[in-house]
Amino acid sequence: MTTALPPSERSRLRRAADHARYDRATVHAIVDAAYLCHVAFSDGHGVHCIPTACWREGEHLLIHGSNGSRMLKALLDSEACVTITHLDGLVLARSAFNHTMNYRSVVVHGRFEPVPAEHKAESLHRLMDHIAPGRRHHARAGDATELAATTLLRLPLAEASAKVRAGGPQDDEADLGLDVWAGVLPLLAARGEPLREGDGGGEPPPYVTAWCPARGPLRRPGS
Amino acid sequence: MTTALPPSERSRLRRAADHARYDRATVHAIVDAAYLCHVAFSDGHGVHCIPTACWREGEHLLIHGSNGSRMLKALLDSEACVTITHLDGLVLARSAFNHTMNYRSVVVHGRFEPVPAEHKAESLHRLMDHIAPGRRHHARAGDATELAATTLLRLPLAEASAKVRAGGPQDDEADLGLDVWAGVLPLLAARGEPLREGDGGGEPPPYVTAWCPARGPLRRPGS
Repeated sequence: MTTALPPSERSRLRRAADHARYDRATVHAIVDAAYLCHVAFSDGHGVHCIPTACWREGEHLLIHGSNGSRMLKALLDSEACVTITHLDGLVLARSAFNHTMNYRSVVVHGRFEPVPAEHKAESLHRLMDHIAPGRRHHARAGDATELAATTLLRLPLAEASAKVRAGGPQDDEADLGLDVWAGVLPLLAARGEPLREGDGGGEPPPYVTAWCPARGPLRRPGS
Repeated sequence: MTTALPPSERSRLRRAADHARYDRATVHAIVDAAYLCHVAFSDGHGVHCIPTACWREGEHLLIHGSNGSRMLKALLDSEACVTITHLDGLVLARSAFNHTMNYRSVVVHGRFEPVPAEHKAESLHRLMDHIAPGRRHHARAGDATELAATTLLRLPLAEASAKVRAGGPQDDEADLGLDVWAGVLPLLAARGEPLREGDGGGEPPPYVTAWCPARGPLRRPGS
């Protein structure tokens, strides 16, 4: 599962190709650190780009929604491109031209297919495990009506490419002597203190108490 | 500038339409809080979704890149959809079915146009002000060659729609008595301590020292 797939014609990166990664471990880690993706597709009204929750099962990326969702219907008739991006910092170079950003992204081309009805309940358990590990045993599970009202789609990660930029600025040699502060302003996806709804529900479970331990060190979701 | 534009056929929201916002102030605030957007477009190879830096000037969203960028070239021949999403939290309801997320997003449909050559330098100053206010006076400005090598495109915000979900879970009446913790696990875009590159550049300027004041309270970029 950590071997690299050869990039396809549409998944091979040209721009900043030295930042490209095609190995499975990098792709999986970037997908697993995400709660949402951006789904691009075309329909009779043009191209669209919609944010939606996502999770991974092996070599597929999954999304879900109401059966009535226009996007989910359109995705069955259209090639799609799904992108996940984590912004890690602003990179301040000594010249304006060399400013850039640190990030980790995955772009997946392909076509979604429905998750078979008999797998839907298990896949929704996996979504819950992604959001809050263990909660599938606490929250009321979906009943037959709720399950039937929900569509799950999956996209193969076969045509996935990752792009990663990390580290400090790359300044031109001639600019290194300039008296200009250079470096990185880091950005982190941090967790805030959980907010209980109402006064019910008893003791908070581990995925709540461990979410933001007393304003402790900043942690990325998924790390 | 705070009046609402009537949504167009492709910018009017159907799904979760009660979360839709079309007023300028909401759209502007969501765009201004972002360092990057996702750009969806079609070319001869299909649909693509690419993350890129963005900033706002009045009623336009701007992006930039190398003259050689395939995306920037394709955008001049194609309708585009640009989306910005801020994920604010995971919403844990008492039932699996009612779990959701808190977010602020803007979707813009339209066609990019080039920023005229005579406006490029000023627009790049605005990008720098968005990244690090004041730094345009410190970093070496782009020379004629660098400026000529850079393409700037702008997209009108005329067909922009925002969608905002905030607050706690909306549980079914029948689930309210369940002994299940319910509430929100907040997510924040936080700032980490600046990392200086090398040992040059003298004293850090205000946009560096103010970036992450001694691991102080978490702040959203743009707030």
